[in-house]
Formats: sequence, C-alpha cells, structure tokens
Amino acid sequence: MLDALLLSFGDELALGQIVDTNAAWLAQQLSAHGLLAAEHRCIHDDRAAIARAFSEAAGRARVVVASGGLGPTEDDLTRAALADALGEELVEDAAAFEWIAAYFTGRGKPVPPQNRTQARRPHSASMLANACGTAPGLMARLGGAQVFVLPGVPREMRAMFAGEVAPRLPPPQAGAAFIATGMLHSFGMAESEMGERLRDLMARGRNPTVGTNVSGGQCAVRVRAVAADRQTAEQQVAQALDEAEKKLGKEFVFGRNGTSLAQAAIFRLQLEKATLATAESLTGGGLGAALTGVPGASDAYAGGFVTYTDALKTAILGVPEHLLRRHGAVSEPVACAMAEGALEKTGADYALSTTGIAGPGGGSEATPVGTVWIGLAKRGMPVLAKKFVFLGTREEVRERAVWAALQMLRNAP
Amino acid sequence: MLDALLLSFGDELALGQIVDTNAAWLAQQLSAHGLLAAEHRCIHDDRAAIARAFSEAAGRARVVVASGGLGPTEDDLTRAALADALGEELVEDAAAFEWIAAYFTGRGKPVPPQNRTQARRPHSASMLANACGTAPGLMARLGGAQVFVLPGVPREMRAMFAGEVAPRLPPPQAGAAFIATGMLHSFGMAESEMGERLRDLMARGRNPTVGTNVSGGQCAVRVRAVAADRQTAEQQVAQALDEAEKKLGKEFVFGRNGTSLAQAAIFRLQLEKATLATAESLTGGGLGAALTGVPGASDAYAGGFVTYTDALKTAILGVPEHLLRRHGAVSEPVACAMAEGALEKTGADYALSTTGIAGPGGGSEATPVGTVWIGLAKRGMPVLAKKFVFLGTREEVRERAVWAALQMLRNAP
Repeated sequence: MLDALLLSFGDELALGQIVDTNAAWLAQQLSAHGLLAAEHRCIHDDRAAIARAFSEAAGRARVVVASGGLGPTEDDLTRAALADALGEELVEDAAAFEWIAAYFTGRGKPVPPQNRTQARRPHSASMLANACGTAPGLMARLGGAQVFVLPGVPREMRAMFAGEVAPRLPPPQAGAAFIATGMLHSFGMAESEMGERLRDLMARGRNPTVGTNVSGGQCAVRVRAVAADRQTAEQQVAQALDEAEKKLGKEFVFGRNGTSLAQAAIFRLQLEKATLATAESLTGGGLGAALTGVPGASDAYAGGFVTYTDALKTAILGVPEHLLRRHGAVSEPVACAMAEGALEKTGADYALSTTGIAGPGGGSEATPVGTVWIGLAKRGMPVLAKKFVFLGTREEVRERAVWAALQMLRNAP
Repeated sequence: MLDALLLSFGDELALGQIVDTNAAWLAQQLSAHGLLAAEHRCIHDDRAAIARAFSEAAGRARVVVASGGLGPTEDDLTRAALADALGEELVEDAAAFEWIAAYFTGRGKPVPPQNRTQARRPHSASMLANACGTAPGLMARLGGAQVFVLPGVPREMRAMFAGEVAPRLPPPQAGAAFIATGMLHSFGMAESEMGERLRDLMARGRNPTVGTNVSGGQCAVRVRAVAADRQTAEQQVAQALDEAEKKLGKEFVFGRNGTSLAQAAIFRLQLEKATLATAESLTGGGLGAALTGVPGASDAYAGGFVTYTDALKTAILGVPEHLLRRHGAVSEPVACAMAEGALEKTGADYALSTTGIAGPGGGSEATPVGTVWIGLAKRGMPVLAKKFVFLGTREEVRERAVWAALQMLRNAP
C-alpha cells in the first residue's frame, strides 16, 4: 500500500497546454509530512475515467489528494465522478451554499446559477473551506483511503492544502523511513565544475544522496537523506549542505531551500543599512522587479530607471552622447556611466546597470547576441563593469543578466 | 482503448523536487499527431512499480511513451523494469555498445563500466539513437501497445522524440480523429462570467469542446475539435475561437494561441507608431520587463522609472509632496501625477503608472493589501487612473497589476 497517490484532472493538462505544477508542490508537502507520493496521475476531462482513477487510487494508497475540475462550468466533472466512485448521489450542502452566496452578495452581485453546483457534494463527503475562491474542496472515505479533492487553481489549492488537508493527514507508517530533502542554490559556476568539486559527496550508494540540476541558468545541489526518524534525516541533510557549500564557495552559493538571489542581495544591503538603485537597458525593469519581489525590499531598494533607448540614457541618466557614439550602448563605458548616473540621480549607496543584446536580432561579430555588460557603482569607490556572454533565448539572456547583476552586488567589495 | 498514455519515472519527480515538463511537451507533440494522451502517470524509482506501470499502460493505450530512468546509475531502473513487464532477460546490444564506446573514446576517455549497462535492452526490444547523450532509448511491443522509452533529460528526450518516435507513431484511429486545439487569452473578466457568456459553446457533447481555465489571473478559453482530417478540425477550432471572442469582447480578449498581453499592447503601439513610458512603484520594474520581453519592443517602449520610495516619486517624477502627504502614495492623484511625470520626462505618447500595496504587510482598512491604482496618460488627453483590488499573494498582486496596466493601454480611447 502506497502512502499517497496524487491525481490531477483536466484536458489542459492531458493535452499539455499547461504544465502540472500542482503535483510537484503537493508531493513536496506530503513528503514533509513523511508521506511519499509514489505515484501521480493526470486524467483528461472524462467522468468515467476520473471515477475509475478515484477507485484505483483508493485501492492503492492510504491518502489520495486530487486537484482540478471543481469549477462552476460544465467541464468541471470531479464532484460527479467522485460520487460515481462512491456509488452515491450528489446533494446540496446547505452551509456551502450559504457560504458561496455570501461570497457573491458580499461583492454586491447575485449568485450565478452555475456557482450553485459548487455547493454540491457526494452524500457521504464533507466540504473543505476555500479561503481564496468559490470552489469548496471535498473530503471522503473511499475504500480504505482518505480522499481529498482540491481546486486546480494553484493559489486556492495551496491555501486549502495548508488549512484543511495538512492538519488531517495521517502520521507516517510505523517503521517507515523518514525522507528529508534540502537544496543549495548557486549561480555562476558550470554544472560540470560543480560535479567535479562535489564528486565525493555525489558517489553512488551514499546516504544522503547528492545530485545537481540546472534550471534556467541557476544550478541547484539537491540532497536527500533517508533515516528512521525525522531529526536524523534532517541533520544528515544539513551536514551535506554545509559540506557542499564549503566545496563550492560562498561567491557562487547564494542560498538554501528556496532562497532567491534577490533575497540574498537585499539581505546584504539590509545588513549594511545601504540602499541600491538600478539603471536598466537590456533587462528592461526585470532587475527592479526581482528586487521588489522580496517583501520589505523598500528598506534597501530605492528605485531606478529603465533607459531602453539611447536617447533616454542621455536624457535621464546623463550618459554622454559621445560614449554612445564611440563605444555603442553595449559597452563598458556606457555600463559604467549608467550606474554612475543612477547613483547620482537617486542618492543611493550602490547602483547596478545592465546593457546588452538579448536577441534574437541585433547581434554583430564584435558584439554577438548574449553579450551583456553589468556596471556596479558604490559611493566613494571607482565604478566598474563586467562583461558576460550568455547563451540561450532572449528570455534566458535577460534572466541571467538579472542574476549576474545580483551576484555582483552580493560579492561587491 | 486510449490513443496514448505517458509515463514519467524518477524519485525527483515523485518527491516534487522537479516539475514534470516532459509530460506536457510529449502530450502536445502527440496531439499534433492526432493522438490524445488521455492519461499521464509519474512513478517513483521502484522496479516493480515501473514494471506494473508498463503492463497497465500497455493494457490501456495503443501507444505508451515513457521517459526517465535510462541513465548509467543505480537508480536507473527502466531497462530492467521493461524487461520484467515483457517477461524477458536483458541482453547487450552490440551496436549500442559500440556507439557508447565511440562516444567516450571520441572524447579521449575510457568507457566507464556503468555506462556499459546503457547498451542493454530487453531481448525483443530495439534501441533508439540518442543524438545528444549516452543513453539510447528503447522501443518494444508489449501486448497490443507500441512502447517507446526516452531519456528524462528534456533536451535528449525532445531530440529523440522528433528523430526516432514521431516517424514511427501510428496514424490517428480509423474513422476518428484528428485533434486540433486552440486558445483565447483574456484578462479582466471572472471565469464564472465567461462561463455564462460561453454557456452554449461549452455545452457537453458538442464538437468542438470549449472550456475555460484560469492561470495566474488570466483566463484562457480552450477549444478542441475532433474531425476526420486536420483541415476540418482546424477550421472548427478557428470558428469556435471567433465565436467565443465575439461573446467575450475584444476589451477582455487580447490574443490567441500563446500571444501575451505585452505583445498585444506593443502591437497596438506599433500600429499607431506611438511610444510608451512607464512609472512603476508597486510593480517595481515588472511592467517594463514584460514590455521589453517582446522582441522589437524598442520601437514602442522608450523606458521609464522605478520610483519605489516616496522621495524618488517626488525627486524623479515631480509628484508634488503635498499629494503624497494628503492622499498617500496609493491614490488616484499620485497615480495620475506619476503617469504625467513619466510622459513629460520622456516625451513619450503614452505613459502608464502603477502604485499599490502588494503585501504581505502595509495594508490598512481604507487601503487593504491588493489595492492598486493604475494611471494612464496620453499626450493631449486628460490623465486618468483606475482602481483595482486584487486578491492573492504579493507576487500575484504585482503580476495582475502589470496585466491590468497593459490591458488599460490596449483599451485606451
């Protein structure tokens, strides 16, 4: 008997129109509870297929967590399919209907008739509250399994899992191994170089297991430990992360377990009680967006400029026209002048600038697509700029430029 | 009998450490061949579970496409599990071994013993060439099904699918079924309202089928048509998209089949030969980043300002201090003044501004988290601002604000 089996419903998933991120998120949550979601299934919008998936899953796992198909429209079949699997009729849940009605009347709107179907549940099932939308979830006992059904919208699904499902999960199976996982995040070192430095830790057959994987230019070290209890597994993970970080170096490793590079950069600024301004061409605002994505960023990030055209680089940042004419916008002197301009106009302590060629067009032999100059100015220090050549699509070049800028700030003298 | 069933193998997937993007990609490819991958399964690294998944899949679908677990390491179990499902032994494939040996000797390295296992295959299976790595794929007949096994590394998997699998796929089922799909993208209308307007099109049993789904605040209309030939299916899709667009209105529908809202906004500017500037507080550069994500955006988007602090709103954009004092930064007059400032400082034809409270902190009763004012200035017209209250996380509020701003520009008088 498996600990847990995940089900995801929807034609958009089955057809590959969207990627199923819910399953990975739920699997992480369950493994944090000591439950391994050893199998995930995605099923297209077909009532009989969904009903069969419920029955098979309940025959195979102690816990079944399903998502999708609870919306108010006609292709939302999950309620009916669960009722089929249970051999029951759908009934209207009075409390759920009241709640849905309140959701709409509280917004000054009549209840749309199709939203009334969202108050229906199989006879023996109960409702799970939705803190962020109109679709209540469902909970039922099917065979020996506890079945939870959540909305497909990730935000609603996550809130409902945290509030309604997690507190009701059974404990890990007696004698079962506890799995702990952890990650280090790095930017700027090639995966092959990391593999060489971590060779001993990555040897087969070791516990914890250590692996690397690249995702969009950042490289993560993944650690997984198996032990008889949670504490031992977590200690093994922490120790392996420490060792790996030492071998790779803090210049490259910027955080653990989901810390972003922007958070790490903001953290350095906050420690120094310093402020940062930005002057972006290539990244067009992406650097500012990454920084302001961190809650509380306003302590450390003042703001900046998006000078996408040469004219604005001169008009707003005071980049001398002769520098643009002589060296081109994608050049060391222009990156330096942009950073200096941002420092001066904002009164910040640090400034970062980006200029480059994201492609697909616009490259030349001397300055191919992917060429990026990043400038770093610090009050009272000489300004500097560093050149990078990134491979990849337009989006990838721009994203790597944001990360390279944040990493330069983290490593600023 | 299903057309196709997808299998993905690996503990990283089962534990949710990585998201399964292979399944979505493969499903798209198969549906372009007229084969619906109605079910996807992800299985953890367990030989018996993988073998059973092969058997069940082959009993359920005409084509089974699996990926993962073909590497040289000990947790790569797929070869052995397929042999188990076939009731066969693994044998070494002489040609595959030669090819693997050449891969290493061509790089001046001895063949690592564990890579020799990659030359093994179930007795009745045959090998599929890998253009980008050392793991050959496998192809076998299991029950009535054609089974293909591909590497898990997306780059290798995609190349092998295109080169080795696609040419060998069976035609769509006789008398059935060429599948064509299409999407409309909208922002600003609730899904329930869309469901009401599209009720006729979404009725069960119709061909094409029409559904809606929400992803991050945008709502897509998905259309799928099944017909005897490709052309008919595509015509049916196009016609349904036209009808749906008419029922929803161009104010909300901004594009089709992957068009982004930023592309639609840039397109309007290019048609008018007009330029845009931005003044961002809440979104911190995200609006500029979205606009400059579109190749060729520099025709239409000049640049802008990230004025995250009140001091910068005044210093850089000229927002009068008394407006900030009296109305607060998140207010109609400040949104208007920011947009006007950006217009004036850049000489652009349009300017958009964003100011709001993304949370998690900073809200008040009068101005709760999620409150956003978006300003729109157009040369020669009175400036205006519109208020929104978005639900969701910090990231979601910021993203919706970017989309609302782009939609306001698209719909500007």
